[in-house]
Amino acid sequence: MRGRWITPGLVDCHTHLVFGGNRAHEFELRLQGASYEEIARAGGGIVSTVAATRASSEAELVAGALPRLDALIGEGVTTVEIKSGYGLNTETEMRQLSAARAVGRSRPVSIRTTFLGAHALPPEADGDKDRYIDLVCREMLPAVAQAGLADAVDAFMEGIAFSRDQTARVFRAAKALGLPVKLHADQLSNLGGAALASEFSALSADHLEHTDEAGVAAMARAGTVAVLLPGAFYFIRETTKPPVELFRAHGVNMALATDCNPGSSPLTSLLLAMNMGATLFRMTVAECLAGVTREGARALGILGETGTLEAGKWCDLAIWDIDRPAELDLPDGLQPAAPPGVEGTMSDRDASIVVSPGRSASTIWRKCLPARPSCSIRRSGRASRPHRPLLRKPRVRKRRFTASIPGSENWRRNAFRRTRRRCCSATSLCRIAAG
Amino acid sequence: MRGRWITPGLVDCHTHLVFGGNRAHEFELRLQGASYEEIARAGGGIVSTVAATRASSEAELVAGALPRLDALIGEGVTTVEIKSGYGLNTETEMRQLSAARAVGRSRPVSIRTTFLGAHALPPEADGDKDRYIDLVCREMLPAVAQAGLADAVDAFMEGIAFSRDQTARVFRAAKALGLPVKLHADQLSNLGGAALASEFSALSADHLEHTDEAGVAAMARAGTVAVLLPGAFYFIRETTKPPVELFRAHGVNMALATDCNPGSSPLTSLLLAMNMGATLFRMTVAECLAGVTREGARALGILGETGTLEAGKWCDLAIWDIDRPAELDLPDGLQPAAPPGVEGTMSDRDASIVVSPGRSASTIWRKCLPARPSCSIRRSGRASRPHRPLLRKPRVRKRRFTASIPGSENWRRNAFRRTRRRCCSATSLCRIAAG
Repeated sequence: MRGRWITPGLVDCHTHLVFGGNRAHEFELRLQGASYEEIARAGGGIVSTVAATRASSEAELVAGALPRLDALIGEGVTTVEIKSGYGLNTETEMRQLSAARAVGRSRPVSIRTTFLGAHALPPEADGDKDRYIDLVCREMLPAVAQAGLADAVDAFMEGIAFSRDQTARVFRAAKALGLPVKLHADQLSNLGGAALASEFSALSADHLEHTDEAGVAAMARAGTVAVLLPGAFYFIRETTKPPVELFRAHGVNMALATDCNPGSSPLTSLLLAMNMGATLFRMTVAECLAGVTREGARALGILGETGTLEAGKWCDLAIWDIDRPAELDLPDGLQPAAPPGVEGTMSDRDASIVVSPGRSASTIWRKCLPARPSCSIRRSGRASRPHRPLLRKPRVRKRRFTASIPGSENWRRNAFRRTRRRCCSATSLCRIAAG
Repeated sequence: MRGRWITPGLVDCHTHLVFGGNRAHEFELRLQGASYEEIARAGGGIVSTVAATRASSEAELVAGALPRLDALIGEGVTTVEIKSGYGLNTETEMRQLSAARAVGRSRPVSIRTTFLGAHALPPEADGDKDRYIDLVCREMLPAVAQAGLADAVDAFMEGIAFSRDQTARVFRAAKALGLPVKLHADQLSNLGGAALASEFSALSADHLEHTDEAGVAAMARAGTVAVLLPGAFYFIRETTKPPVELFRAHGVNMALATDCNPGSSPLTSLLLAMNMGATLFRMTVAECLAGVTREGARALGILGETGTLEAGKWCDLAIWDIDRPAELDLPDGLQPAAPPGVEGTMSDRDASIVVSPGRSASTIWRKCLPARPSCSIRRSGRASRPHRPLLRKPRVRKRRFTASIPGSENWRRNAFRRTRRRCCSATSLCRIAAG
């Protein structure tokens, strides 16, 4: 294993991974020259996904999502955020969130769910956005919160979606229920989404192609993460780039995510999103890596438990058979590393990493091997401190690596609470120097 | 298997898959703002790949190329073109081509090799392009041809590479040796590359971002295929697109390929190249599929043996677990189909396909299953005609699916010759209707 690189398991902090149907036909029609209006008239667009999602059982939603999730896991992703927003009524939104939780139980990955009732207006709302937002705030959100189905609340603030006032109502309702917020902001136009998100101390504002300097400054003051989604930028052939230099100048942290969804970003490769962040947005290699580890975790409010290589965090690791980190940004057919069995030192901190062979060793990964089980991170010069018990206790290890893990999610969420106060921003990369 | 789609095994008709070293560091430097000149001064650019390739043994070149080839195979690619051009002296060019042949012997894939001595000027040429072209024509080309290491000859005609006259000299030398030609043409500027390629009845002209209508018309008259390389377009952030509408208007066939290389297109996904062909170049779904099957084979001069689903051709198939062909263009995490065991009818021709389970059934493929062995294509209403014996004779099947296949390549090349006269342009898609 000498010379291999270790990163935290990757974090995909913005996806719409659970949905019914698919919209490949639309993609085809657009290439043949059909306009968005023609596609919408033919029953396409988000409305078609809403109809297909409403018509799907939870089991069907799970079965449809697993291939997409597996593609992410195969790249070393260990934490995935999944939004609702294709139900647009209480029953289907809850089914979508419940399916998101279920996919997390059937794979060795952490799922964070986000309620996105304010994603689009359903056909039955007959154009009345305010009445629909009433429904979101008074019925959907309380039901979702009571069922414990959402870790955060999101909205789509845009001319074609909801206004600043409507978004603010959703955010107030979320805050009243104790849920953190995030926002699809300034994607197609600058409506002040970044600033509104900051007012509500949002975990993140996402897209941000049209955000101005005032919005960036507000995000910096609020500590709101900028989640950049180059996949959507690429697929919809957007030409205005998010203000990466302003984010740097103001010290706003930048995350990267796939935005995996059936319409504007049918992308299930976080590595490709990294490459697009570099190629299309000119983010540096270090920014791209931080964007899918530390900043992805920060954008989900779980930096205290994952996203960096630090004692006390979950042992979510990916081991890469590469010579230098920049290779993570290049889609060049890297092969999986050998099963883990590692003893090494971190490159930029005085610490050491121990990874023992575990049950996942037989799993085939395309580009990397996660090494969740039997792992500890020790600081040199201090007594060895075992990593979180989650991945050390045999009963848990067994649960994490069988197909279905009843009960483990609640167990895990309790563990979250215990660590929520820990916050740190540390290394997200080390190299195995020996072993 | 009902409802699954079958395509010919995909053809990646333009790659530089065999090379020494890697240039991830350069990618990193560019993102940090370094200019090409600074990178070149730091020993980067093509010169660094030439140095690393010269320093690599054939075994090292093979070992480096296999992960990239495996990534392509995992997507259903069954034919790959590989160019030389990182040796730039006789010994290393031949070693590179020999390594390309060797990777083909160790995987169930057909390799077509292309001699690209006129790729760049080596440092020792001291700026004297004409003298280097002398070396290419008088020493390298005859040696490569005598050793039977090249199926075609390519050159890079560009301000930063070789002139029209220098290119023409290489082409004349190739024709004198009976080798077909192709050209890196009009990528960065319009020097009339497409027209020159057409003069020499080139199999293909590749890149073509700056080709004008006269060049397109010449290609149409010569039957030269336009090989479009959206990966390079994407990575170097080119903004001028190849004239897709002119190709359509003049009836020039368009192929798509990865251009897999360590510098301008570190891409090992032909499916992503299809998506980029659609998203960036606005090619239709049908054009993208034809581009990686029928037209890819035509660009290699092997349409008589692969690239479409027709009796008498090699049984290079990919079976896709998708609902509609447009899904092939979307990087959305499709899973492999089940092992083949198929009986069905073609959708747009009166014919039937039979695929029996074969030795490859246990292979895990990311998006599709190739179904080379034990396969036949029968036309209904006619006596069943067994497919090429290559994939039916046990001894051959055995050879094709073990790790090393001594002698099979020559065997295969002989078979090529027997079918070279067959030429057709037929379906590249069918759906399994029953079975």
